[in-house]
Amino acid sequence: MPRIAALAASLVLLLQAEAAPVASMEGEAPVLLRTAGLAAMTAEGERYPLFARELQRMRAEVDAALRTGISVPIPKDPGGGLTHEQHKRNYKAIYGAGLLYRITGNRAYADFARRMLLDYAKLYPSLGAHPAAANEAAGRLFWQSLNDSVWLVYAVQGYDAIRDAIPEADRKTIDENVFRRMATFLSDGSPALFNRIHNHATWASAGVGMTGYVLRDPVLVEKALNGLDRSGRAGFLRQLDLLFSPDGYYAEGPYYQRYALLPFVLFAQAIEANEPQRRIFAYRDGIILKAIRTTIQLSYDGYFFPLNDAMPDKSLRTEELYQAVATGYGATRDPAFLSIAGWQGRTLLSPEGLMVARDLAAGRAMPFPFASMLLSDGPDGDKGGLAIMRSGAGDREEVLVAKNTAQGMGHGHFDKLGWILYDNGNPIVTDYGAARFLNIEAKDGGRYLPENESWAKQTIAHNTLVVNETSHFGGKVKLADTMAPRQIFFHGEGATQLSTAEMVDAYPGVRFRRTLAQLAITGFASPVVLDLMRVTGSRPAQYDLPLHYAGHLIDIGFPLQSNVAARPVLGKANGYQHLWVDATGAPGTDNAVLTWLNGDRFYSYRMLPPSGAKLILAESGANDPRFNLRREPVLIQRLESATAAVFVGLLEPHGAYDAADETTVASRSRIRALRHERAADADIVTIELADGRTVTLAIADDPDPAAAHRASVGGRMVEWKGHFGRFDGGGAKMAGTGGGS
Amino acid sequence: MPRIAALAASLVLLLQAEAAPVASMEGEAPVLLRTAGLAAMTAEGERYPLFARELQRMRAEVDAALRTGISVPIPKDPGGGLTHEQHKRNYKAIYGAGLLYRITGNRAYADFARRMLLDYAKLYPSLGAHPAAANEAAGRLFWQSLNDSVWLVYAVQGYDAIRDAIPEADRKTIDENVFRRMATFLSDGSPALFNRIHNHATWASAGVGMTGYVLRDPVLVEKALNGLDRSGRAGFLRQLDLLFSPDGYYAEGPYYQRYALLPFVLFAQAIEANEPQRRIFAYRDGIILKAIRTTIQLSYDGYFFPLNDAMPDKSLRTEELYQAVATGYGATRDPAFLSIAGWQGRTLLSPEGLMVARDLAAGRAMPFPFASMLLSDGPDGDKGGLAIMRSGAGDREEVLVAKNTAQGMGHGHFDKLGWILYDNGNPIVTDYGAARFLNIEAKDGGRYLPENESWAKQTIAHNTLVVNETSHFGGKVKLADTMAPRQIFFHGEGATQLSTAEMVDAYPGVRFRRTLAQLAITGFASPVVLDLMRVTGSRPAQYDLPLHYAGHLIDIGFPLQSNVAARPVLGKANGYQHLWVDATGAPGTDNAVLTWLNGDRFYSYRMLPPSGAKLILAESGANDPRFNLRREPVLIQRLESATAAVFVGLLEPHGAYDAADETTVASRSRIRALRHERAADADIVTIELADGRTVTLAIADDPDPAAAHRASVGGRMVEWKGHFGRFDGGGAKMAGTGGGS
Repeated sequence: MPRIAALAASLVLLLQAEAAPVASMEGEAPVLLRTAGLAAMTAEGERYPLFARELQRMRAEVDAALRTGISVPIPKDPGGGLTHEQHKRNYKAIYGAGLLYRITGNRAYADFARRMLLDYAKLYPSLGAHPAAANEAAGRLFWQSLNDSVWLVYAVQGYDAIRDAIPEADRKTIDENVFRRMATFLSDGSPALFNRIHNHATWASAGVGMTGYVLRDPVLVEKALNGLDRSGRAGFLRQLDLLFSPDGYYAEGPYYQRYALLPFVLFAQAIEANEPQRRIFAYRDGIILKAIRTTIQLSYDGYFFPLNDAMPDKSLRTEELYQAVATGYGATRDPAFLSIAGWQGRTLLSPEGLMVARDLAAGRAMPFPFASMLLSDGPDGDKGGLAIMRSGAGDREEVLVAKNTAQGMGHGHFDKLGWILYDNGNPIVTDYGAARFLNIEAKDGGRYLPENESWAKQTIAHNTLVVNETSHFGGKVKLADTMAPRQIFFHGEGATQLSTAEMVDAYPGVRFRRTLAQLAITGFASPVVLDLMRVTGSRPAQYDLPLHYAGHLIDIGFPLQSNVAARPVLGKANGYQHLWVDATGAPGTDNAVLTWLNGDRFYSYRMLPPSGAKLILAESGANDPRFNLRREPVLIQRLESATAAVFVGLLEPHGAYDAADETTVASRSRIRALRHERAADADIVTIELADGRTVTLAIADDPDPAAAHRASVGGRMVEWKGHFGRFDGGGAKMAGTGGGS
Repeated sequence: MPRIAALAASLVLLLQAEAAPVASMEGEAPVLLRTAGLAAMTAEGERYPLFARELQRMRAEVDAALRTGISVPIPKDPGGGLTHEQHKRNYKAIYGAGLLYRITGNRAYADFARRMLLDYAKLYPSLGAHPAAANEAAGRLFWQSLNDSVWLVYAVQGYDAIRDAIPEADRKTIDENVFRRMATFLSDGSPALFNRIHNHATWASAGVGMTGYVLRDPVLVEKALNGLDRSGRAGFLRQLDLLFSPDGYYAEGPYYQRYALLPFVLFAQAIEANEPQRRIFAYRDGIILKAIRTTIQLSYDGYFFPLNDAMPDKSLRTEELYQAVATGYGATRDPAFLSIAGWQGRTLLSPEGLMVARDLAAGRAMPFPFASMLLSDGPDGDKGGLAIMRSGAGDREEVLVAKNTAQGMGHGHFDKLGWILYDNGNPIVTDYGAARFLNIEAKDGGRYLPENESWAKQTIAHNTLVVNETSHFGGKVKLADTMAPRQIFFHGEGATQLSTAEMVDAYPGVRFRRTLAQLAITGFASPVVLDLMRVTGSRPAQYDLPLHYAGHLIDIGFPLQSNVAARPVLGKANGYQHLWVDATGAPGTDNAVLTWLNGDRFYSYRMLPPSGAKLILAESGANDPRFNLRREPVLIQRLESATAAVFVGLLEPHGAYDAADETTVASRSRIRALRHERAADADIVTIELADGRTVTLAIADDPDPAAAHRASVGGRMVEWKGHFGRFDGGGAKMAGTGGGS
């Protein structure tokens, strides 16, 4: 028969590629789950609370599905719609029923999955493109093929678990009319999708590859690993090469890193189980494990940094991370993963999940080492990076994130050299994330909203420089993908953590360099954040520097002209049309301070606006007739017809407000003044505290750690070696600490 | 000596008043804390976690104060300021040091309190009115005398605990120069304050009376109990008669009920300890214990209903409630108090606190019986009431609160027949509460903001009828206090809970009656809320019916005219000047639906606007140059030049949004239509469900439970007995359940 021939033919290829012996491709036993591990789950599962709860939860879920009965509707609705949700429920049911059959041996589960899959075997061959297909690649069961891939990844795991427990005739029917057809549709049937270097393609590869193992079809596996032509120019391995930086940072940002991680992890586990000789977890210096750890580092208090297209309510409590943590622990036994699993309160019904539950119950967990780090971006790590500065490893410590990464394709935002800040458990300087109500049908079927383009992606919606009310790269993603910021310097230790990066030609002829520093000061609960932005342009232009903050305004240091009776819109396009102007002001260098309250702590933002700059207090929500936007405040420093300019800002967390005790302390800033001087080859910023102390930070243009610098600060000479020097003074004396190592 | 004479003189009075034997007024041993209980605290304190933590916390606090040293500054700052906070810290330190001395026997604590009090003995006699005194009664240590009373209540407890441990000379000095002077200032020195029937006077009475016991001065005690002239026309007992309704509801509302409770509870405990024969806990049918239980009933998920002047972040986790729960448990041993203490995670360093900790540790806690109830308002219970309808006792159950209470003096809001709703752990239909940043100096010294008058108190800021853009009673509190709503009917059990109340002449010649019903429907996670408002006026006027909701708008059923480019203000005065108009619309009876998302649940509000009505979507925050207001959305039904009108609304919680699983169910309303018919003597509202079922609620004008009614509904006759009848139909059949018992 042709299949044998194909198998034989592919064998040759396989052997060339050091593939597994055919033996491992025979029989019907599960290949995606090690049977030994399954036996242990049956024997010990109930013993460990985390796993036992998981088993109970899955039982409740699948038993409910059994009671409800099988519904395999003809695809109709977009995301959030009835048929969409039903097909999602179905793949979860097939997956769950398969696992439960393996763990409990109860054939009712196997039979349920079998019958549901037979219905799909009837339905699937009859399907064409989905009726609700939007601009994205159309699926057959779902409005976008991405969901079809996800369906396949889960369903094939459930099928694998029951495949040896059903009649051969049914097996053939399901093999051919569901899984082979789907795998074919998602591979040969969707070449454009399948050969992309993109997470949608990773899902496809995973689904196709895992199906290949289950159908004992090495050709499918080969296509999944090396692309349709099996040349290696596309496919899973190429995606591993190109989609992660050497530090395990994913090009599209944290939200999609979490999402993309799952197919990588699932397929890798399948590869490891079937072709250990590929040493997939060691591939590219262990990139998969790096990616898992990095994903966790990209979070605060359990929630992912909402950079680029991202839902701000997305946390480590997601399917993807339950899988990643279990897999990571299975592969490394690193006890730090256990504390994350503990926070998640969830794990997998898999041999790895069992290990997690067992060792967590045995008290083996260690805190996850959240740390300051520079995560390089780009396949070769030379496309900028994400600089994370943490005042400590705890959930409520201050975290400063400098977004100096590349654009990251279609889901990237035009926010080069932007930043966000967390403190005391709350977001303080914010990123809007994506304008989308995921899976809420009334909101454009749960897809990205028009405001995602008109607001969320635009530069003004972020905390970085806007020139002439246009966005970086003119808002053109193709152009944006050709340029990246340059991470000039990073120092992530001690009382002075600091990142310097530069962006050239985000606007033609404009270069801007930004230093963001986290300065610990004795007696301050959290470090202050210093922001120094130097812009040079080739022709006069309007510079806007927005600060999106979260909290309620408590105090404003400068006089305002308020729009009390009618509220105008700030601009016409590029996101400006979505901003209501509450007030404007023209502060001096001594009173440009804004104080807000967030949670039980105060935050004062003190600026040295360039002379002639004005401040705009605005709020998102204009030109939003369908109420698609959240309404959030922003402070904008505006400088007109400028070429060279320096913006200096200092954000200071202070005080405490206790609603229960009705006590308030230090509701006013403890900083008296902020000064900036330009030396020959450095910028010097001096912070004057109310108690008379001073903190001076000298930032050399040159990042060279060996270069020596000197400058006069208020008449006094200071000397340092490397990119920066910090000098703390108690009035008279001045203690210096060089930086830049 | 004169003191003896006074004592003797007062003795006569005391004996007339069946007072305690003089014996109990002699010596220097503590009189505010039973020494026996203190011994037990010393012996067992460390054994029970709750108490041990409290002891540890107090030690840490007082030890820190000991290290910091004593600072008794000359009064200067308003609320939130340095001297304000320092004097607050000081009374807490005196209180804590006193208790710790008693429990640990460590004389360092006694000595610390003694030295601090000696400094007050030096400072206090020199003080006049506080420099930052505002419109309220000036204090001496604080900007308002209220804080002075609080200082006295706490400090005298600490002093009582050490009084027998310090040299007689010091005792005399402190007796006379601190406590007698303060007590005199707050009583004879402040007659207007002291003789008021108001919580400020209760604090004064408590401070003065407790000081009376400690100084063994029965005259002070008598003044505290019966007013300056000891006639009983004022003072503590009179306050107990007039400030609480027979159901233990406090005239000013939940926030001040919590606050007012503390002096009542503290003084009552002192009275019980020194003059048990007064049987203070039995006074007025046990009003103090009723008040404690009612205070707890006035909360959702631990937070107080923010009615009238109230901070929405105020919960059961406050000093007042730690005291109330411990006292309540000490007096009743009701195990329901233990579960509240468990939620609070706090208790008192008192014999009662020890009991709470002991019995909680012994697992004696029972759930607090949160229940539907009508709390009458007014000393005689005839000034309207607060109708609370709960779908269950749990923290996340739906709670509907109809505010049919009287004005409640200066802190009352002009919101007769307003309502709020909680569901699934969140506020859904909201009350703004007070415009104030408590103790935040930058916000008017932490006092009530101007916007509390111009917005928070105004009718438009609440969920009730506004006529001609003016507030109830023309916003005049004196007038408002002369009129109250009439609670016509309440039914708080079963699948149909219902409240009907009526307000006459909140506007001259205008009568409005409102029925709010909580209807449980099989298959619905939470009941739907039906709102029927019937207005009759003597001359044509504009009727506005606002709904302040919390959540993000998801879907709007009717076409809108949106103010996208410039946002106008809704009106000129009475709160209207603070509303931005986002959009207006003129819906029909079939599409007047608004859907929003709050937490993980959807809420659809379906209206039957009177014909000609238009809808206004607005947001608070206009005319607010100092950013004093929170910005919150409101929906307003507006009917112009109307006399009689009926507003029908239905709020339906539905569906679920899961951010982690990325699943959404039932994001659209399951209600197909809402109908209203007027019968001869009743209103008939019919709810048509998408699944074909119908729920019909018939509301008779007559509340008489015995009266029989019949009406034709869509051609079919229905009959019921009492104020309401409910008829559930599955299309053909119709099952009736009479109501009104």
